[in-house]
Amino acid sequence: SIVPTTSYLKDNNNKQKKSEHDIKKLIHSTKVGISLVLVSLLYILNPLFDQVGENAMWAIMTVVVIFEFNAGATLGKGFNRGIGTIVGGGLGCLAATLAQKIGGVGNSIFIGSSVYILGSCATYFRFVPRIKKRYDYGVVVFMLTFNLVVVSGARPGLKVWEIARERLLNILIGFIVAICVNLFVFPTWASDELHDSLVERFHHLANTIQGCIEECSKSVKEKENQPDTSFTVCKSVLNSKSKDESLANFAKWEPWHRKFGFSYPWEKYLKMGEVLRELAALVLALQCCIHASKKPTESLKQCETIGSKVVWTLREVGDSMKQMRKCEERDSIIAKLKTTREELSLVTSTSMIEEFENDERLAIASLVFLFMEVVEKVGELVIEVGELQDVAGFRTRVTPVSM
Amino acid sequence: SIVPTTSYLKDNNNKQKKSEHDIKKLIHSTKVGISLVLVSLLYILNPLFDQVGENAMWAIMTVVVIFEFNAGATLGKGFNRGIGTIVGGGLGCLAATLAQKIGGVGNSIFIGSSVYILGSCATYFRFVPRIKKRYDYGVVVFMLTFNLVVVSGARPGLKVWEIARERLLNILIGFIVAICVNLFVFPTWASDELHDSLVERFHHLANTIQGCIEECSKSVKEKENQPDTSFTVCKSVLNSKSKDESLANFAKWEPWHRKFGFSYPWEKYLKMGEVLRELAALVLALQCCIHASKKPTESLKQCETIGSKVVWTLREVGDSMKQMRKCEERDSIIAKLKTTREELSLVTSTSMIEEFENDERLAIASLVFLFMEVVEKVGELVIEVGELQDVAGFRTRVTPVSM
Repeated sequence: SIVPTTSYLKDNNNKQKKSEHDIKKLIHSTKVGISLVLVSLLYILNPLFDQVGENAMWAIMTVVVIFEFNAGATLGKGFNRGIGTIVGGGLGCLAATLAQKIGGVGNSIFIGSSVYILGSCATYFRFVPRIKKRYDYGVVVFMLTFNLVVVSGARPGLKVWEIARERLLNILIGFIVAICVNLFVFPTWASDELHDSLVERFHHLANTIQGCIEECSKSVKEKENQPDTSFTVCKSVLNSKSKDESLANFAKWEPWHRKFGFSYPWEKYLKMGEVLRELAALVLALQCCIHASKKPTESLKQCETIGSKVVWTLREVGDSMKQMRKCEERDSIIAKLKTTREELSLVTSTSMIEEFENDERLAIASLVFLFMEVVEKVGELVIEVGELQDVAGFRTRVTPVSM
Repeated sequence: SIVPTTSYLKDNNNKQKKSEHDIKKLIHSTKVGISLVLVSLLYILNPLFDQVGENAMWAIMTVVVIFEFNAGATLGKGFNRGIGTIVGGGLGCLAATLAQKIGGVGNSIFIGSSVYILGSCATYFRFVPRIKKRYDYGVVVFMLTFNLVVVSGARPGLKVWEIARERLLNILIGFIVAICVNLFVFPTWASDELHDSLVERFHHLANTIQGCIEECSKSVKEKENQPDTSFTVCKSVLNSKSKDESLANFAKWEPWHRKFGFSYPWEKYLKMGEVLRELAALVLALQCCIHASKKPTESLKQCETIGSKVVWTLREVGDSMKQMRKCEERDSIIAKLKTTREELSLVTSTSMIEEFENDERLAIASLVFLFMEVVEKVGELVIEVGELQDVAGFRTRVTPVSM
């Protein structure tokens, strides 16, 4: 039969993905180790240490803190750290020089109040949603640097500007080491991860709907014996929002990626993720429905044909996303989904439903209704995908289609 | 009428909540400012500076990095930083002393390879889900401290143990300042936030279901003129998972909280959040249904009564959660929900549905079916709440109830 084969393929696919991910983790760990050794050379090699001295610790700190799993996160953190250090250090130096000029008790009061005011304001600033989303780490670094630099104004005779310059230089070294190793040695891209996870969700939902159709023709006993794995797929799709948002955020920092390039419409991915979540909620309700219906509902043959059309559409659209080609047959798909929906409402005209018992009848009617809603949502999704493909400039490929 | 009044109250309530949250933000910002000034005194006041010297920067760094919005996050980060520093510093000192004893080229090789091995292993360790969830920051600090300390082994004659001791002392000072200010000056508790947000969701879903019932009796025109706010409530409930998890994680660090105390069953909150999300998915489908039905469905009067029972149950259970008292009438609620469900299936027996047109009939049937599913899910929720109330030892209060 076809079911064990697909589930075998699925298992195999999952295993392969898992081992791929494990290899990526190993590579990442090795990369971190290498960068740390590189940056430790500032301490270990005498000629280098004579140049930078104790300040080499700032280079080490930078590497540990900004080296993240994917390129976008590392770039974003590095950029935040750089800007935060420059602005915080500059302001701090100014305040410190001023404090040194004031001298006496005024010096301490000036430093204390500037620490208080900038610390509070920066913390409040971190609550602004736009800042929190992309520049949170930069503001923290700003606070830290400003504070560390301004207090040195309390020590008369300290060459504030020189210290700041040397620390900045070391942070720059750490930044360069981290970025080079992260981006040029087997890089992991957030943009790839977001793209793949979106494509995967199309196929996951398609499989789940197919599972629903197969379940329709089973008896209650068979249903009870079966493990309840299909719910988990829908739920993982439903819980994808926060991961999507952070990945999209990182992807925006990756302008050098071969596939996606500058100003790629990542916002559209978030929108599509939203529609996929709505679809998942409907599929979840559909599954509830099927679990509630007690008899095999084989008489709804039409439902099956229509369901498999929906499954086909989801897979087709998912594949076109995966290959980043335009889904040429988009308009015809939408038209077909529309007729599908109408057919579905005809299926249930009068006689069909009357066959069932009272309690059963409700479940069947809802089943059909929810299927209609699913068809509509898939149509919405196809439109959304089409818009992305237009905006992102996917290439076209003409293929003969049969639905 | 009652609708404008409730919406007015809701608006007022939201405004109050918003301003409360704004005040909390302001207080938090002020607290950060105060802690920074306190810790900067190590630099500013001469007698203190003579004691700690340049190492005071570690105290400042600790305050900036561990001071978080709620007490649990601050405690967790502080604890992680402390343990990470102690373990990393200890191991680093050992390795550095060993390296100093080896001397020559062997010294550099030993330091380089220990940096590489511990850096890679710690990074790989960060991928373990349990570690990632609670101790991620601790591992980062471990890596950083080990690295900073071990490289000083490359400089012969450096008193490694003394440097480590002084840095640890300063980190301790920073930790104490941050914890004291965070916990003893108007603290914000993650446990409160999680508890309140859960209670809020009960009421939000109750309001949404009430909105559904009211919508049933409206014509299409009225529906179209209305802003589509109800979907957003369900979606915010659906997207609550990651926030719940991080709050529960923080709440576990807050054993000193007056209301909750040690080993409070936060896992149950996550379980309840899951059921609430399933309920929200059903309510979302219900809303789709209502939007699809074209005529006012006033004839389903029974649906209305039953719906309001569900709303009442959700509110009652939510209130009992809010006041942390046992919902005494739990068993009677469950029994009533069961009869409600049976009534609901009778509602639709034969004659009822026949009145409607073909297309309409489907929507109505699904409406009733989904209502039944909602009733069942609410029953599940009541059981879940009951279990929590038993485990957490909520107090009892006998009140006469009428449903």
